[in-house]
Amino acid sequence: MALIVQKYGGSSVGDADMIRGVARRIGREKGRGTDIVAVVSAMGDTTDDLIELATSVSGGAPDPRELDLLLSTGELVSCTLLAMAVRALGYDAVGLSGFQAGIRTDTTYGRARISEVDTSRMRKELEEGNLVIVAGFQGVTDEMDVTTLGRGGSDTTAVALAAALGAQRCEVYTDVDGIYTADPNTVAEARKLDEIGYEEMLELASYGAKMHPRAIELGAFYDVPIYVASSRNETPGTLIHGGARKGMEQRVKVTGIAHDLNVAKITLQGVPDRPGIAAAVLEPLADQAISVDTIVQNASVENLTDLSFTVTRTDAAKALEVVKPVAEEVGARALTADNGVSKVSIVGSGMQNAPGYASRMFRALADEGINIDMITTSEIRITCIIGDDRVKDAVRCLHRAFQLEREE
Amino acid sequence: MALIVQKYGGSSVGDADMIRGVARRIGREKGRGTDIVAVVSAMGDTTDDLIELATSVSGGAPDPRELDLLLSTGELVSCTLLAMAVRALGYDAVGLSGFQAGIRTDTTYGRARISEVDTSRMRKELEEGNLVIVAGFQGVTDEMDVTTLGRGGSDTTAVALAAALGAQRCEVYTDVDGIYTADPNTVAEARKLDEIGYEEMLELASYGAKMHPRAIELGAFYDVPIYVASSRNETPGTLIHGGARKGMEQRVKVTGIAHDLNVAKITLQGVPDRPGIAAAVLEPLADQAISVDTIVQNASVENLTDLSFTVTRTDAAKALEVVKPVAEEVGARALTADNGVSKVSIVGSGMQNAPGYASRMFRALADEGINIDMITTSEIRITCIIGDDRVKDAVRCLHRAFQLEREE
Repeated sequence: MALIVQKYGGSSVGDADMIRGVARRIGREKGRGTDIVAVVSAMGDTTDDLIELATSVSGGAPDPRELDLLLSTGELVSCTLLAMAVRALGYDAVGLSGFQAGIRTDTTYGRARISEVDTSRMRKELEEGNLVIVAGFQGVTDEMDVTTLGRGGSDTTAVALAAALGAQRCEVYTDVDGIYTADPNTVAEARKLDEIGYEEMLELASYGAKMHPRAIELGAFYDVPIYVASSRNETPGTLIHGGARKGMEQRVKVTGIAHDLNVAKITLQGVPDRPGIAAAVLEPLADQAISVDTIVQNASVENLTDLSFTVTRTDAAKALEVVKPVAEEVGARALTADNGVSKVSIVGSGMQNAPGYASRMFRALADEGINIDMITTSEIRITCIIGDDRVKDAVRCLHRAFQLEREE
Repeated sequence: MALIVQKYGGSSVGDADMIRGVARRIGREKGRGTDIVAVVSAMGDTTDDLIELATSVSGGAPDPRELDLLLSTGELVSCTLLAMAVRALGYDAVGLSGFQAGIRTDTTYGRARISEVDTSRMRKELEEGNLVIVAGFQGVTDEMDVTTLGRGGSDTTAVALAAALGAQRCEVYTDVDGIYTADPNTVAEARKLDEIGYEEMLELASYGAKMHPRAIELGAFYDVPIYVASSRNETPGTLIHGGARKGMEQRVKVTGIAHDLNVAKITLQGVPDRPGIAAAVLEPLADQAISVDTIVQNASVENLTDLSFTVTRTDAAKALEVVKPVAEEVGARALTADNGVSKVSIVGSGMQNAPGYASRMFRALADEGINIDMITTSEIRITCIIGDDRVKDAVRCLHRAFQLEREE
């Protein structure tokens, strides 16, 4: 029998009515003769409420081990309620905790990584005709301590289970219809994509269907097709898969425009242009688990150069603190942070080998009078750092320039 | 190092402030050099709220397995929050689910019985200097399915852990100060007892500190001293233990007056006085898990007799339904139910071998003009079924008659 793993996010199971709605959806699919494993997130704001309670009793940062055991209850509640609602429709169903579903992780509380999925219990339940509902976002260490996978971890649970069970595909139901060529709130003509490759999805994941990058990477690695659609209607969604990338020399095209407002730029001005400076600056950031995104070093003038990089705005203060002693040590003239920048990217497969895309992007921005602060490129993306105030204009003009409103 | 198991009920951990208060209590005890295992119930009305949610999504009675997994989250939340609060005071602490604490049960969801406690994880944590906080009310089957022990199950968890760990004693902290000679709301002079035997406690448990009878029976079986006191003040509580019963020919005395309003009387009038009638009536009730309490059969007149028994009022309608076909089969003249009765008992050790207690009880009730409907006795209790309207008068006059207001 065909097996599908489905995932329902917290906004899809916000209350008893919505849980019954999801139950009907699952039941309908089961009625078509498909085996279902459904992964579910905590109801609505449960996780935030629990964190607030934990912070209150701890008078500060709660212990990570205790916090994970606490947070895991949110998904247990929605998982058991969904199993009950499915049973009420006349289907056999069983709710499983991450531990019961066989999800083993390392001991990194708060952002544990899945080490192994023992599928025996799930397979037994499926063989007995049960719909299997699994609490997302959680696993258990070898010592039987409960861990959580970090924000968006239920997506990772769903893709991992699909991979481990050899499911036909993983369906992620959320509060948006699928993946768009740009943020529909910014670009009125933004078009929903029928399909997209994993790598492009990684670049576009920052808006629309906010799938966790880890889940997409996991899908790419195990070649699990991921279907993203709305849990609220029957509109067709977007299929994320590797098929498009497998074709020989497929036509290069821009798939969509991504943008990100959560960007801060940090600059060390006037540092000596000698080997090891960039490493000296970036290593302590890595040690503090601060992700550095775009890195640009300008051409040297009088043997002095400027080194700029971007981090998320939430990390900006900490990054400054970490970099300050290094800046003094290397004799930088100044250290500045700028929260007034944003990222805008064009995303598409095989872009780096096809000339003309970058120049077309820069021309479109220039025609709109938008100044480019920094530039970086990857195989499937060209990104510009620009001023915050022009982000929406940039997304709209690029959407037009690459004619993304047109059907493929 | 001395080891004490403490239990805190839901009303003692109702909100973040109360949890911090309990944490200070536990920390203080630890500071005195005692190892602590604390068992905690779900916060306030959590369990009732979860049952309501479950009933709502199920459109009726939720599946027992799913319900148990759902309800177990309530104690997980309070257990992890308490562990965090204890850590915030500077003590090392770890929260354990019933599963992690090694509590194995049978598969009777909703009222599982503990089959075994594997103490290895708890001992390891204690050896590492941790305060151990355990989620009460829950265990796990051999198949790793989560079970709950039924209402009051956290008391059972605490006593079971104390027995398995060989703790010095089990301390149950609740919202009352201890065990009284009678309900303090009914009898103004009711006096708190310093100590009481397990069997007497079983009889008095229906008011005051409402400890679950299973927990008291478990304590008696494993000889675990149970100390019941308030979590809200430092007033000395009541120690339930077997010591008093072990003395040679100890002085017989009445310990307290119990009463119970949740009583219904069912009577089969004019049934033939031949062997097997009582069994024919009571067997189907046992099959339906309806507990029958007092049973009285009157002397036979013209080879016909009346058979009366009491059940809880909640079971009365079902009991009538079950007994009806039997009553017709044996040719009873009439079948009646009376919800207007109550039980009042004098409780004390060794009462049955000491004459005079029963007559003193009946005299006191007669002097007060209270009619006795039915009488039963046990080794440590004499119970009268009387009319509802006179219960409070009966408790007060008996409390006076046995001079319970006086210090021992």
